[in-house]
Amino acid sequence: MRAPLDPELLCRRFGEVRRRSLALAGPLSDEDCTAQSMADASPVKWHLAHTTWFFETFILERHEAGFKPFHPAFRVLFNSYYNGIGAKHPRAQRGLVTRPGMALVRDYRLDVDARMLRLLDSRAGDAALAELVVLGLQHEQQHQELILTDVLHLLAQNPLYPAYDEARPAFPASAPALSWRGFDGGLADIGYAGGGFCFDNELPRHRQYLAPFELASRLVTNGDYLAFIEAGGYRDASLWLSEGWDQACAGTLEHPLYWRRDDSGQWREFTLHGEHALDLALPVTHVSLYEADAYARWAGARLPTEAEWEAAALSHGGSLLQMHGHCWQWTSSSYAPYPGYAPQPGALGEYNGKFMVNQYVLRGSSCATPDGHARASYRNFFPAGARWQFSGIRLAR
Amino acid sequence: MRAPLDPELLCRRFGEVRRRSLALAGPLSDEDCTAQSMADASPVKWHLAHTTWFFETFILERHEAGFKPFHPAFRVLFNSYYNGIGAKHPRAQRGLVTRPGMALVRDYRLDVDARMLRLLDSRAGDAALAELVVLGLQHEQQHQELILTDVLHLLAQNPLYPAYDEARPAFPASAPALSWRGFDGGLADIGYAGGGFCFDNELPRHRQYLAPFELASRLVTNGDYLAFIEAGGYRDASLWLSEGWDQACAGTLEHPLYWRRDDSGQWREFTLHGEHALDLALPVTHVSLYEADAYARWAGARLPTEAEWEAAALSHGGSLLQMHGHCWQWTSSSYAPYPGYAPQPGALGEYNGKFMVNQYVLRGSSCATPDGHARASYRNFFPAGARWQFSGIRLAR
Amino acid sequence: MRAPLDPELLCRRFGEVRRRSLALAGPLSDEDCTAQSMADASPVKWHLAHTTWFFETFILERHEAGFKPFHPAFRVLFNSYYNGIGAKHPRAQRGLVTRPGMALVRDYRLDVDARMLRLLDSRAGDAALAELVVLGLQHEQQHQELILTDVLHLLAQNPLYPAYDEARPAFPASAPALSWRGFDGGLADIGYAGGGFCFDNELPRHRQYLAPFELASRLVTNGDYLAFIEAGGYRDASLWLSEGWDQACAGTLEHPLYWRRDDSGQWREFTLHGEHALDLALPVTHVSLYEADAYARWAGARLPTEAEWEAAALSHGGSLLQMHGHCWQWTSSSYAPYPGYAPQPGALGEYNGKFMVNQYVLRGSSCATPDGHARASYRNFFPAGARWQFSGIRLAR
Amino acid sequence: MRAPLDPELLCRRFGEVRRRSLALAGPLSDEDCTAQSMADASPVKWHLAHTTWFFETFILERHEAGFKPFHPAFRVLFNSYYNGIGAKHPRAQRGLVTRPGMALVRDYRLDVDARMLRLLDSRAGDAALAELVVLGLQHEQQHQELILTDVLHLLAQNPLYPAYDEARPAFPASAPALSWRGFDGGLADIGYAGGGFCFDNELPRHRQYLAPFELASRLVTNGDYLAFIEAGGYRDASLWLSEGWDQACAGTLEHPLYWRRDDSGQWREFTLHGEHALDLALPVTHVSLYEADAYARWAGARLPTEAEWEAAALSHGGSLLQMHGHCWQWTSSSYAPYPGYAPQPGALGEYNGKFMVNQYVLRGSSCATPDGHARASYRNFFPAGARWQFSGIRLAR
Repeated sequence: MRAPLDPELLCRRFGEVRRRSLALAGPLSDEDCTAQSMADASPVKWHLAHTTWFFETFILERHEAGFKPFHPAFRVLFNSYYNGIGAKHPRAQRGLVTRPGMALVRDYRLDVDARMLRLLDSRAGDAALAELVVLGLQHEQQHQELILTDVLHLLAQNPLYPAYDEARPAFPASAPALSWRGFDGGLADIGYAGGGFCFDNELPRHRQYLAPFELASRLVTNGDYLAFIEAGGYRDASLWLSEGWDQACAGTLEHPLYWRRDDSGQWREFTLHGEHALDLALPVTHVSLYEADAYARWAGARLPTEAEWEAAALSHGGSLLQMHGHCWQWTSSSYAPYPGYAPQPGALGEYNGKFMVNQYVLRGSSCATPDGHARASYRNFFPAGARWQFSGIRLAR
Repeated sequence: MRAPLDPELLCRRFGEVRRRSLALAGPLSDEDCTAQSMADASPVKWHLAHTTWFFETFILERHEAGFKPFHPAFRVLFNSYYNGIGAKHPRAQRGLVTRPGMALVRDYRLDVDARMLRLLDSRAGDAALAELVVLGLQHEQQHQELILTDVLHLLAQNPLYPAYDEARPAFPASAPALSWRGFDGGLADIGYAGGGFCFDNELPRHRQYLAPFELASRLVTNGDYLAFIEAGGYRDASLWLSEGWDQACAGTLEHPLYWRRDDSGQWREFTLHGEHALDLALPVTHVSLYEADAYARWAGARLPTEAEWEAAALSHGGSLLQMHGHCWQWTSSSYAPYPGYAPQPGALGEYNGKFMVNQYVLRGSSCATPDGHARASYRNFFPAGARWQFSGIRLAR
Repeated sequence: MRAPLDPELLCRRFGEVRRRSLALAGPLSDEDCTAQSMADASPVKWHLAHTTWFFETFILERHEAGFKPFHPAFRVLFNSYYNGIGAKHPRAQRGLVTRPGMALVRDYRLDVDARMLRLLDSRAGDAALAELVVLGLQHEQQHQELILTDVLHLLAQNPLYPAYDEARPAFPASAPALSWRGFDGGLADIGYAGGGFCFDNELPRHRQYLAPFELASRLVTNGDYLAFIEAGGYRDASLWLSEGWDQACAGTLEHPLYWRRDDSGQWREFTLHGEHALDLALPVTHVSLYEADAYARWAGARLPTEAEWEAAALSHGGSLLQMHGHCWQWTSSSYAPYPGYAPQPGALGEYNGKFMVNQYVLRGSSCATPDGHARASYRNFFPAGARWQFSGIRLAR
Repeated sequence: MRAPLDPELLCRRFGEVRRRSLALAGPLSDEDCTAQSMADASPVKWHLAHTTWFFETFILERHEAGFKPFHPAFRVLFNSYYNGIGAKHPRAQRGLVTRPGMALVRDYRLDVDARMLRLLDSRAGDAALAELVVLGLQHEQQHQELILTDVLHLLAQNPLYPAYDEARPAFPASAPALSWRGFDGGLADIGYAGGGFCFDNELPRHRQYLAPFELASRLVTNGDYLAFIEAGGYRDASLWLSEGWDQACAGTLEHPLYWRRDDSGQWREFTLHGEHALDLALPVTHVSLYEADAYARWAGARLPTEAEWEAAALSHGGSLLQMHGHCWQWTSSSYAPYPGYAPQPGALGEYNGKFMVNQYVLRGSSCATPDGHARASYRNFFPAGARWQFSGIRLAR
């Protein structure tokens, strides 16, 4: 992570990010904000509290004179996974925390916000502090995306198909034609290079050798993917990684997560805007790595490596459509430390490093990613079977 | 079930029972009412809706002219287990139904109440209808008890130990001395005999032969049970049914459900009124049949059969303390149909009969049972391992 | 248990029973004898060793001068469930004990047999000892039945459908007509009354009041049961106990355990004599209590209680066909202690008592029961879902 | 895969490899060969049959005139995971196949061997056939290693600690000092380059860029690893990947798989030669990737990538001790296709490719690897939690 912005800008940015989290909860009832639909997802209320806990624990507790916690139990209750901080509430039971209620969590946010702004005011020149604050804001933006993915998953369990937001944006009627962009091989420098913020997992910048490759100009669409289904893709073992095939045989993998065939045989998709007829022109999303890989094999292509994706994005990314803002794009790269990677000391070192096993990297960003949050070197990561994120497919060959 | 009350009384009774359910939710936030702490428990909101569904489905749908459902999805959503009605929402996912919210469920209750009262007014002389209404009210009273047991279980998962009701009633400082009441054996008539309401599982009244027996004059107290713990009761295999011993060895059975030893080694108990130092004079509660049986064996006694309990209650119940209003009392009787038992035809026949396997009968009533709901012939039933009900121990020998 | 036979007879009986266990293993390879098909079943080798362990531990260890164990590790390895004896090898891992091999287990049997016979010779007048020996022999006979049920289950997992014994006995071509035998109600004395051996769970003899009832003259046949299947019995929720219906919905309960419909739609049954076309005249067997209960309800009848079965067997059992030697008959009675029941002190007290919860009583005896082992008061017991025993259906009403 | 040896040599080689498999079963009883200790392991008998099935299915079925299967059921019974061949027997139930017995499996081997030799004799010049035969032999050698790892796991479940082979080889009393070997970075060619046999996953040979690195001159010893344990390594969250820490907290990860502390507190290790006092000078083995990674972090080092390992082995491998023949060495590289990798068409294409997810590469070879089987480019792979293989640790930095 690098040094950030000037003090005033930092305070303004702090307020913007913090307010946006609350705004995301705007269309939701307190009940919506409390439920947890599965162990991998968290209640909105928990996200709102945990991001606040992050500032309170990693900044106020260390830097505020006469620090007193807002509530003594919150230190454990809203710790996500930082063993360096101590005990934590069991992840799968976050939905049972009906108290504190949303009202108290809102108070918690306001209290911490006020104390943070006072602290920032009194330590205007402190670059290390500013760096921590920026990390906290980036952290909160990650949770802003999770708020949307987790709410979508929760609402999808509801037989009434409730919408998070009834107003559905207009989409183009057709997808652009898919073409291929070629890239020369050779040595490429991979990892964050600019002077702004990045996460530690984007560093150190290092060299990789790439063979020549091509990348698809756009994402795979719902229409493309429907052709795969209709061609029997889910029933052809030769297309699948063994683990994915086991899921297909068990009947738990038959189509993207939020697709459903209605009584008349028409495909529908549940979205943040309710359930609608499947839009064939939109990028397919909510697929696992297994599905992405099987689709690619069926299409005579493959998934890109994360280095290919990044090198392509930097070299002539302009001709590649939908690199950002639609859905995260599965790569074939397992999530691993870059050569020379070292997490920072202390509990914050747990932010990324300890998850570098049995996960796969997704590149780009999605419709749920806050503006300005992602970049070409950004590494998102999830287990190969995860489908509740906005995860899609870009082909390579 | 027998014919009930006069029309006006029925309407008044209807209002009282229905209002009491809402009153029970009074101290709770909407968030509290939405969460489900385990598959065996249900959200308060679900109880409020399901009891309303019962009237709408079994009475209005059949008897209301021009019946239209309050919401077409509720028929499935709030069906508990009536296969005769059709599909039902998966039990373990009741906590994910954040919509309808509490506000809409309150509207649902008011709407059904108004329609019910109109129907009752128009069909004042209809004994069959009145009988159905009484069944619905008795059903709702059963759920009133479950509202309290389920909320207690939910709050017990919360590390903040929140109270349902801070105001703790005064309790006597000491328990009465335990003595034994003898009963002659012989033929006893078992099952409901009066002219009022009873559930179908209390019938037919039939004859059983009982050997002479004695019943303890009062319930086992927390203090009695603590002596069992301190004597190593949970570590002595010879006291336990095999299934219970397996749980004890696995470390999942060490003390009554809501007991906890604090850092200073003092026993505390979580209750609807928050967590307090263990009150030794109160009846022990929230124990499984395994624990009740092991305690009885340790004490040189046994659990009563349900016929013994009922015969004693009817013959000179007056000298037996705490038969009602403290906690349900495990019997050694498995829940089985009485000789000649036949459930009523149709979906309402599923009320009791289909659960008559692998459950054990509890007699009496608890502090959570609505006034006037229970009687000597009342048969409550739960699996041998259940502990979240107000279940305690009365010894026999 | 009561005092047994004269010394010489006891020795002869000892030899007969012990040899029969080995004879049962005769058609099996060492490999067959080692495998364990599920946690509920045990390898034949384990049965042969455990029954030997019973004599070594409960008799030789206590009564043999200068006792030395055959192998020091066997005390733990072949302990089934006696906590009073100490540690035991995990039940689900019995199939992994490839050493000792069958050869050593045979040596173990011969060694213990020789020592037992020497002991019996030297203590010819010792009634207490003789009683223990008889218990050990009865215990071994129970395991002889389990050897057959467990081997059948093991072979049924094998896609080659191997037979335990190719020679199939001749069966009658048709079943006798089913008629009903009536029994007067009144007080009946239940429990073992003779001067011979019985298990402790058959005592104390005690009085029960029975309402008048009728019992079917014969068992339900495969043909009867097939009619139930063809009438949609497995798809009609109104016939089932709730737990059974859950299994039927999950697709794990569709027909008796060893039935299979072949590619041409014909029903076949796997037996100890290999797989054959379903014989409609034979009693249906390998059904759970859930299936027995659903069938009875469909047939307009019910299952008998164990007291009814016993009273009928004793009053005019002669007119009731197939009471013994075909299959065990599910009753609606949960396995519970008789009034006044007390297990014997020490580890042998674990023989029966600690299993008296969540199991149901079966009466009669099966084709796998050793001759002379069962009697009218005999109480077999298994969980309601168990199907790998020779369990069938006799109707009552 | 490349073209192999001359015809006579091929036949001789065929005989040697096939006989060695049987020789490995030499110290085992038929019972030992039948049991399956966990779903990940297979019975020895199954290994012996499956390797034979491979020749019968992929060679004889396609090339033998008038092919008739040895047994029609074996095609399904001994198919491991080739969906292209059709149905397969469930993996977790391999231990229940007591029939065919070992005698018939030996006959199966002899029959297929004779037919294979006849075929090879008649098709002496057929390079494609020879290539298939070599693949079958390499496949069988892989199963020879599994025979030993699976038998070790089976015997380790036995409370008698039986030895596969009592004769324990002599080991050096002390390990050589650990030093570091440096390697220049730069472009390296990775993947098999010679003219002999390799598996498809070692191809295509391709270029990778490596930063300069150092490799430890020898493997981590039991003594080294014991120091990690004694320093509290298993209780220090900061050393662990999150998944590994979860296992450590659950108490399922406390020391290498076959270590045990006896009653006197001394560490012992179970091996193919029985249980012995822990030999501190030997390489630590039977550790998971989680443990290898945590140890490396504790030692201020890291695990090598597979490219580093291979480049080091080829550049000046001579100064690196214990690269082969002791234990497989975890790398930090997830098992993924090399750039341009394409499995061969048909069922044989399932050999490697479909497993390229959620597994990690191990390099080198172990004491259980057949002589001449491994090479510098060889890629072994297992899930991060696997411990029953001979898996150890070589440090990098």
